[in-house]
Amino acid sequence: MNPVICFLTDFGHKDGYVAAMKGVILTKYSKARFVDISHDIDPFRIESAAYILKSVFPFFPEGTMFVVVVDPGVGTTRKPVVIRANGKLLVGPDNGVFSWILKDYPFEAREISNRSLLRPEISSTFHGRDIFAPVAAHLLSGITLEEVGPLISPIESPWVRPDIHDNGEIIGKVVHIDRFGNCITNIEKPLGTEKGVVLLPNGIEVYLKKTYSDVPNKAPLALWGSCNHLEISLNKGNASKQFGISIGDNVLFKPSHFTVDT
Amino acid sequence: MNPVICFLTDFGHKDGYVAAMKGVILTKYSKARFVDISHDIDPFRIESAAYILKSVFPFFPEGTMFVVVVDPGVGTTRKPVVIRANGKLLVGPDNGVFSWILKDYPFEAREISNRSLLRPEISSTFHGRDIFAPVAAHLLSGITLEEVGPLISPIESPWVRPDIHDNGEIIGKVVHIDRFGNCITNIEKPLGTEKGVVLLPNGIEVYLKKTYSDVPNKAPLALWGSCNHLEISLNKGNASKQFGISIGDNVLFKPSHFTVDT
Amino acid sequence: MNPVICFLTDFGHKDGYVAAMKGVILTKYSKARFVDISHDIDPFRIESAAYILKSVFPFFPEGTMFVVVVDPGVGTTRKPVVIRANGKLLVGPDNGVFSWILKDYPFEAREISNRSLLRPEISSTFHGRDIFAPVAAHLLSGITLEEVGPLISPIESPWVRPDIHDNGEIIGKVVHIDRFGNCITNIEKPLGTEKGVVLLPNGIEVYLKKTYSDVPNKAPLALWGSCNHLEISLNKGNASKQFGISIGDNVLFKPSHFTVDT
Repeated sequence: MNPVICFLTDFGHKDGYVAAMKGVILTKYSKARFVDISHDIDPFRIESAAYILKSVFPFFPEGTMFVVVVDPGVGTTRKPVVIRANGKLLVGPDNGVFSWILKDYPFEAREISNRSLLRPEISSTFHGRDIFAPVAAHLLSGITLEEVGPLISPIESPWVRPDIHDNGEIIGKVVHIDRFGNCITNIEKPLGTEKGVVLLPNGIEVYLKKTYSDVPNKAPLALWGSCNHLEISLNKGNASKQFGISIGDNVLFKPSHFTVDT
Repeated sequence: MNPVICFLTDFGHKDGYVAAMKGVILTKYSKARFVDISHDIDPFRIESAAYILKSVFPFFPEGTMFVVVVDPGVGTTRKPVVIRANGKLLVGPDNGVFSWILKDYPFEAREISNRSLLRPEISSTFHGRDIFAPVAAHLLSGITLEEVGPLISPIESPWVRPDIHDNGEIIGKVVHIDRFGNCITNIEKPLGTEKGVVLLPNGIEVYLKKTYSDVPNKAPLALWGSCNHLEISLNKGNASKQFGISIGDNVLFKPSHFTVDT
Repeated sequence: MNPVICFLTDFGHKDGYVAAMKGVILTKYSKARFVDISHDIDPFRIESAAYILKSVFPFFPEGTMFVVVVDPGVGTTRKPVVIRANGKLLVGPDNGVFSWILKDYPFEAREISNRSLLRPEISSTFHGRDIFAPVAAHLLSGITLEEVGPLISPIESPWVRPDIHDNGEIIGKVVHIDRFGNCITNIEKPLGTEKGVVLLPNGIEVYLKKTYSDVPNKAPLALWGSCNHLEISLNKGNASKQFGISIGDNVLFKPSHFTVDT
């Protein structure tokens, strides 16, 4: 049984940054197998990376390791961390990128403090290669979590918990915009909520539907996306461009008993 | 012998969609090995995906599996399908994306109808994860094609057969524009046709050459590309931008006995 | 021990070119394992590919093979080559793309001339698939370097050696712009040079710092990057866009004894 190492970064595809991390791991653990989740997270958008991580985490088998490097604070005092949750391991900066995992699963988190696990020289700009990759390789080779460093309480960012009102309305925010322009929010499906309406920042109302083809081409809809998060879409179009929606924008969701789904 | 699973989608690189499919497969078949053909097919451009599939299919060994998810009709009545051709397996929506394979090889096609092979909950927007990936994993684990579902006659889209006139002229269309701006058509090389001229939509005539460097920098040429399809190129330039050519545009090819190759 | 094959190309992610090469290799050597370094090198920018190769080369274990296809001269007289350096193998066109490796390591270089190692039909536009991939597969299968062809002296491009003046000033050039807009030069860190100033083409002076966060957000800095090359950056911003810097631009580096680092 040879687990897979998944990478999630904002390093893009032009450069050698991801490959350097893979080379470091292969040098220490030659059997390593890799899956790239994404390297096209908008630079420094921690909430987007956190959502993507959530969207794939449950689908990987036990033993999978996730190396996440979206790290605007590289070179500052933010801590490097290893987290075990759901039988899987996460390695990366403690900056909120693991927020959804910390909310959804019991976990054990340890600060990476054992200097002997790292590369001898540590660049101030590339901890992915010099800290996270070698720690991942050591974990693959069988060191225990205790050897990594002491227990810590990692950061859980506030945007994993949208504002739920007593009347059932939810104020959430856009945390990710996907390749098709679908605007994915931090609002998770409340049990049995099949109807409702979403108020966009520009005042437009969009109705909750089941799937894209429930509306005409280029018409807007809201739906519970493939991870049960509320998303704003345009059938065969780009909702983000059409409505000028960006990551961080607020949306208001009203479940059906407040509105009529026409 | 552990075959490779190739992915071809329009999912892009920003999101977790491809990784979720890989996670589903690894969960059921831990030895799975992956090759990404492309995830940057222009969204919903079935003819482009069909051409790319054709361009790589013959180069992979027997046993290779291709999971193709360019699926504008997800959530509608288009059928999910498994096809065996040339000793390889194809999994995806029956929407024309397999047209070139169906034209070029004998095949066996089956509708995916065995519910027990799929994920228990099926999202209406992400059949790649909930239908195609688990079926691929079951096939890797050794189920027979018969267990997938009944035989069907899959769709072959009309654009795999350009319009060949009695005088040898061919009216074809652009099916793919590559990263360099080369405009690749559905016109396959007629035996022994080494000379000729192509009439572009804007009225410009471009002569057939052997390779890019047969013309000066930034000069246009036509050539039989690396898959023996007619393509319109600019030496060290971008033909699509230069001539405003898009997928779907018609071109007329006149073999050499109608013209003088100067 | 099953070595990894790394790919570095300007083929982009839209097309099947990389996958076709992988298919050719898998057909001859079914156990092949792949790592993609980058396929997003700016089309035909040999110096950018050469830098990326340098930036990852030392981090991979002995036995690793690098297939590099940034090849504006495909179809011309530039020679195909295999190089052994640092216990690793490089396969690609002899056009300068291996310049940094040739400068930094002892090497053995051979022209690929053994026709029996190649695909039977050689496209004039796609030597990656028809020459480099099959040679890589044969090397993996255990042929010797001698069987590839005769020894040659490969090209070392002039830009691997910046202009070092007697007074310690260095005139170098930008060889790569990364995903974040960091402008990486061909100037390698002179021993112990921790302070200095860089003169940009537009006349602006930028001071050498340790890491991004040593300056305010959106402020410029120079630093010795993760490969000890001088790079021009903007903290949490895009230096290339901000200052209009392109690949090929000259910069002047003055070590600290000529200036005061404020």
